[in-house]
Parts: sequence; C-alpha cells; structure tokens
Amino acid sequence: MALIVQKFGGSSVADVEAVRRVARRVVDTRDAGHQVVVVVSAMGDTTDDLLDMSAQIASQPPERELDILLSAGERISMALLAMAVNELGVPAQSYTGAQAGIRTDSHYGRAQIIGMVPERIARAVREGQVAIVAGFQGVSEEEDTTTLGRGGSDTSAVALAAALHADVCEIYTDVDGLFSADPRIVPLAHRLRTISQEETLELAAHGAKILHLRAVEFARRYHVPLHVRSSFSEKEGTWISDRPANPELAGLVPEAALVDPQEEPMEEPIISGIAHDRSQDKITVRGVPNTPGTAARVFEVVAEVGANIDMIVQNVPGEDKARANISFTLPGGDARKALDALEAHQDEIGFKELRYNPDIGKLSLVGAGMRTNPGVSAKLFGALSKAGINIDLISTSEIRISVVTRLEDLDRAVQAVHTAFGLDATESEAVVYGGTGR
Amino acid sequence: MALIVQKFGGSSVADVEAVRRVARRVVDTRDAGHQVVVVVSAMGDTTDDLLDMSAQIASQPPERELDILLSAGERISMALLAMAVNELGVPAQSYTGAQAGIRTDSHYGRAQIIGMVPERIARAVREGQVAIVAGFQGVSEEEDTTTLGRGGSDTSAVALAAALHADVCEIYTDVDGLFSADPRIVPLAHRLRTISQEETLELAAHGAKILHLRAVEFARRYHVPLHVRSSFSEKEGTWISDRPANPELAGLVPEAALVDPQEEPMEEPIISGIAHDRSQDKITVRGVPNTPGTAARVFEVVAEVGANIDMIVQNVPGEDKARANISFTLPGGDARKALDALEAHQDEIGFKELRYNPDIGKLSLVGAGMRTNPGVSAKLFGALSKAGINIDLISTSEIRISVVTRLEDLDRAVQAVHTAFGLDATESEAVVYGGTGR
Repeated sequence: MALIVQKFGGSSVADVEAVRRVARRVVDTRDAGHQVVVVVSAMGDTTDDLLDMSAQIASQPPERELDILLSAGERISMALLAMAVNELGVPAQSYTGAQAGIRTDSHYGRAQIIGMVPERIARAVREGQVAIVAGFQGVSEEEDTTTLGRGGSDTSAVALAAALHADVCEIYTDVDGLFSADPRIVPLAHRLRTISQEETLELAAHGAKILHLRAVEFARRYHVPLHVRSSFSEKEGTWISDRPANPELAGLVPEAALVDPQEEPMEEPIISGIAHDRSQDKITVRGVPNTPGTAARVFEVVAEVGANIDMIVQNVPGEDKARANISFTLPGGDARKALDALEAHQDEIGFKELRYNPDIGKLSLVGAGMRTNPGVSAKLFGALSKAGINIDLISTSEIRISVVTRLEDLDRAVQAVHTAFGLDATESEAVVYGGTGR
Repeated sequence: MALIVQKFGGSSVADVEAVRRVARRVVDTRDAGHQVVVVVSAMGDTTDDLLDMSAQIASQPPERELDILLSAGERISMALLAMAVNELGVPAQSYTGAQAGIRTDSHYGRAQIIGMVPERIARAVREGQVAIVAGFQGVSEEEDTTTLGRGGSDTSAVALAAALHADVCEIYTDVDGLFSADPRIVPLAHRLRTISQEETLELAAHGAKILHLRAVEFARRYHVPLHVRSSFSEKEGTWISDRPANPELAGLVPEAALVDPQEEPMEEPIISGIAHDRSQDKITVRGVPNTPGTAARVFEVVAEVGANIDMIVQNVPGEDKARANISFTLPGGDARKALDALEAHQDEIGFKELRYNPDIGKLSLVGAGMRTNPGVSAKLFGALSKAGINIDLISTSEIRISVVTRLEDLDRAVQAVHTAFGLDATESEAVVYGGTGR
C-alpha cells in the first residue's frame, strides 16, 4: 500500500462529466489498495468568470477580497468531487486549504507556504477516507484565506505530499507528461520517461509550461517524487524524481516506469529537453559611460521598479572605448516600467539612447549530461548556424545553455536543435500540449 | 451614530450592477454617520446553479459536502460587495460565517446557531471598517462549514445584530415591507408602518412569506428592532419592534417612522394583517373508535414519521356515538408519509377510512388588538358567510384566528375579510410581492 497524492487541474475538472471521470480514477487507485489524497483546482472557466465579475466592479480590487472570491472556485470543485467519489461507494470528504493546515504568509494573491499542519488530512486517511483538498489556497496567521498564485495547486499538492510523507505526487494534466520539446513546434518530440528534478527546474524556469517552477522546487527540497501524466488516459507519464520509486507502486504503474534501485543507471542522454520562451522582451541601453559602477546603476534602476532581469550582455563597441552597450531581457510585462525608469534616470546615468525589442525568442537546452560533455555548445551553435539563425544573447548554467534569437526564427531553431541532438522520436506521439493554469 | 446591520437577499445582489447599487446604499448609510455591518446572501441564481451541478452528480449528496458547495455562493457575493464598497472609497472587508463567529451545531443543511463570537466583526467596526458577512452559513465545533437552512441569511443578520447590540437590523428585500394582505390578492392592501414582533410571528407562521419565522423569533428573544424595506427604493418599510426605535436613527429614516417614547401610543387597530397559506393539505380519519387514547394514537403515528400537524378538529357524528372523525391539516410535502403511516396502522387503531384533500386554503387574521375586542370572530364569520364561503376548520390564538376554506375560495375570502375589517387602502400601493429565498 502506498500513499498517493493526486492533483487535478482545472482542465481535468472542466465540467460535471469530467468531475465524474476524475472520481472514477481516484476510486480505481484506491481499489488498487492505495491511500489517496486529492488536490483539486477550480473547474475550467470558474476562475476567469470570477475575475470577470471582479473586473466589472473594480480595476484594482483589494487583494484580500480577490483571494476570498477566487477561493470559492476550489470550494465548488472539491465539494462536487467529494460527492462524486461518495457516489461510487468510497467515503470522501473535502477540506479547504485552511482545514488541510496549509499555513501561509499574508501576501494575498502570491502567498508563500510557511507551515504545513495537515492533521485532519492524516486522520481522514487513517480512517479510510479519501481526503479531497482545495488547491491554490491557504490560510494566513490572521485566519484569512490566501491564494498561492500561479502554479499554486501544484505547490499545494507537493507540499501536502511532503508533509504526509506520500510515496508519490501525481500531477494530472491535459498532456501525457514532459516532452523533449513542445510537440506543437517539434512534431517528433518524444515523451520523457524520467527526468531529474534539477533538469525539470531548468526547463520550467526557461519557458516549459508543463509544471510550475515553484512546485518543482518544493518537490526537490523535500524529495517528493512527481509523476506528471494525463487525466484523459491511463498511459504512463513522466517521472520526476531524484530517488528510486517505491516498489509498492508496482501494482499501480507499468513496471517499465519503475527505477530498479539495484540496477546501475544507464548512461544518461546528454540532453533531456528543449524549452522555449516567447514572453521575454529585450532592452538595449546604448552609450553607457564605461566607468565603474555605471552598469550597476542601470540594473539598480530597473530593479527598483520590480522588473526581473533574465539575461545580460555588455559589450564595448570598437569605435568608442569610453562607452558600452548593455542589453538585457525581461518579462514582456515588465518592459514598460523598466523603460520609464531608465528614461527618468537618463541624465544621471548618462547613456545615449534606449532601444526596445519585443520580438525575441529564447531557446534553452537542458540536460544533466552536458556537465561532463564538452561538445554541447559547439553542437548547438553549429546547428543554429547551419539553419541560418543568428544568436543574440547567450547564458549558461551547469546543465543549461540558453540563446536568444529573433522571434520569427524561434520555431525553426527549436526544430533544428532537437534534430541535431538526436532527440527526434521515430514517429510522432499524438498529444495536445498546453499550459497549466493554477 | 447608530450601529446598523443591513441584510441583502439574493434578489438584491442578483448581478454585478445590483451589487454596485447595494454598495452605494451601504456607503450612503455610513456617510450619514452610522456604523454598518452587512449580511449578504448568494447572488441571484448561484444557489440554484450549484444545486443543479450537485444533482447531476448525486441524488442524495452527503450533506456536509452540500453545505461546503452552497457556502461558495456567499463567498462570491461578499467578496464582490466588499470590492464595490472599497471602490466607493470606504474601507470594507468580507468575513465568512466562521470568521464572523457564527457557531452552529453539526446539522448540515439546517444548522442551529449555538453561539455568537463576532469579535472580528466588532473589531472591524471599531476600526471604521464596513464588515460584510456571509449570510446563511456558520461553522460547527469540528470547524466544518454549515448552512442554516431556509431563512438562514435573515437569521444570520438578526443574530449578528443581537450579539453586536445593533440599534436596528434592516432586512432588504424586493418589496416595500409587510402588507395587510398579499397585494397580488388584495390590490388595496396597505403597507404596515409598524407591527409587533408577536404579530409578525403569527403572520409568518401562517403563510406570510415576507420574513422567516426563525429570524423573527430570534429578533423577539433578543429585542432586535427589524426594519423590512425594499432594496430598490428609498421608501420607508415596515418596522417590527417591541421597543421604541433609537432616536439616533432620526437622521437616517423619515421621522414618521420613529416611535416617540414620550407619546402615548395611539389606539391600536384591531387587525394588523391577513396571512394566507395554500401549502397545507387536509387528512380526515373517519370512524375512529371513540375510546380513551385512540385519538392520541392517531397523532403519535403521524408524529413518528416526522409530519407536522397544524390544525385539528375532532367531531362525533350524530348517528354513531361510538366513533369519531378526526381531521387535521399538515404541510403538503408531509401528506404522503402521514397517509402511509396511518394505513399501516389501520387495524391497530381500528379506524374505518382515510380521506385526503389537498385543495384547501388557510386564512389567518392577526392583530394584537383582538385580545381585548370580543367581536372579531363574529365579524370574520359574518364576512365569510356573506361572501358564501364555507369554513371547514378553525383554530385560534390570543392574537390570531385561522380558518380553512376550499382552495378555490381562498382569494375571495382574503378580499372579503380585508374589506370587512376596514383594511383597504384608499388607493393601491404599487408593489411586487414575492417570497424570500435563503
């Protein structure tokens, strides 16, 4: 018997029919002899409908009230799912984030979990119940409802799995798992059978939308094995884990997915996958005086308005050694305030002009194997060069190389690199690849 | 400065526009110098929509889950209303039943309030906030959400007003107040300016749908003055009170509505109003042995299946002194189970036959003045007789006379009695008279 936390996103409970299907899956897992805790998001469009209403009332509603409003969505889905599971003859009760002991700070709309006290959930499980918990929400020390922000339901699920010492946290979504690239761009992308949490972090941080960074960070910190899989099929998904899976799970999942702890890991492939990101913009500050502290001042000004800088390149053009150009990328939504702040400080910093380019794309190649393989960057640049694609900025970590291209070149770049690294599957896996919501 | 609890039902917050209108009224009250606590029901059709979804999943959903589901409705309306009040520049926060300290037993769907600990609400009011509280819901000792059943939001409002020692509890609805009879039946019915809680109880208990019995009982027990009025107009409604209104309210409400504690009350009218009820059925048990304890046995059998008996008449037909006929009325929904129970005990009780008549109507004449006025019943029977209407059963209290007629005669009966007691207004007040929801 294993303890399994199953998280179902909004698309998995889009309507009453879908809620019934999820209930069936929960009951099947339980019938296989496992204990089940379910984390559920709001149904399909509920969140958007609630946001619409709030937007009709206030352009900037108080965040506390917005959190109360949005938390109604999970209340509805969790109660309906509990009813549906009961209807199949299995006792189930639903619990709010507060009742599940998900304690957060008071940053409404983006609350951080500061403690987990899931006593009621543990008791329910001991008593043979299926516990159904509202994702995306917690409770502050003032006993107010908070929401965890984007990726919140994934985070709720992983945090509960960690606190309950669950054997696995299953993340159900509308795709079959993690892929070597976005199948909408690379039809021959293949599903990853397993991937490390570290690699998943890099992919999530650089544009792969399958799982939220924050949930993966949580899973890594607390050693929670994740299994990302489709709620629309029984197919094995992708295992994200740094430890061997519980052999108890053998009855539940195909044997092929289990890592045999006795067996030496096969030689890892160099590259696990390719992430892409269209959401970043580029700002270039031209003619910055090449004196100590001036570049730092540029980034201070941008940081002060809360813009998150991603990649940076500074270069000194040949003709004028006294001045440098500084380029950086940042989320598109932060560009306006960064530009305004820089303009306001133009005289102080003494730069010549600002250039703004929203039409850039970022490709990130991720793989634990590149740590020990020196030829990766050469192969990457070679593939892009052969495809006639110019590279603008470059940044690297130990297991990732990211390059910025023109936006219109991005898809071709992803395809070329996928092929060059031998990632193409022999035939296309039929999938729909979509983003995750809460 | 007065502390005013304002309760808005589902029809008052049917959509975003209506929520904004309610916010305007709340802010106007506050601008007049008062402290305001608001109790709000779920928006318009929300409850029905949620019930629809639950019915698609389970015919008999677990009551705990149903309460969680339904409580989402008030979460939505209270957060939106708080946003709308803030948008008008007045600080407001919303609170669930649990946060407002509405403690109940664990009878899901029909929970009783067992304690009020509205500390957070009192603090919010002291700090100058408008506190917006979810009606219809509370929290059990197990920290689970409960709902209070029909009339729950009215009860929440009155209970809060009592616990906070509010000066008045305003019940906003879609009519202008309490009327001397249902204006859909009696076009010349007039709005009551004031009425005692005792009379209101009798009216509510005997079919007047304007206010729930339970809320009036609460108001009476804790001496909370009620003001029932329309959310669609500024017009004065009906004051329900056994004590003089707070003179502080003079700035808020027209002077005419305030009882001057110095002034001798005018001679009370004999009759305050006429309630009617089409929802009762009549069962007659014929040929019951006229022996001690047998009649009691009939009512025991009916009580055992949870049917609520209202009026009872027992008579001994002339020809056979050994047997009696027992007739009683009960809510239409209880008739089937009462009939089944009686049939099952026919041999034991020894009665001859059962007769069932769903086509009856009940008219109730209510007025504190009838205590000291001996001619009331004579006038009532005279008026009905002149209109050619037969009376079937009669029951009385100190301030009420109820009679059962044929259903098809009920409207004419109400009209005839309204006229006979001089209640007709000189011209029709244009109103829509409807039931209340939660």
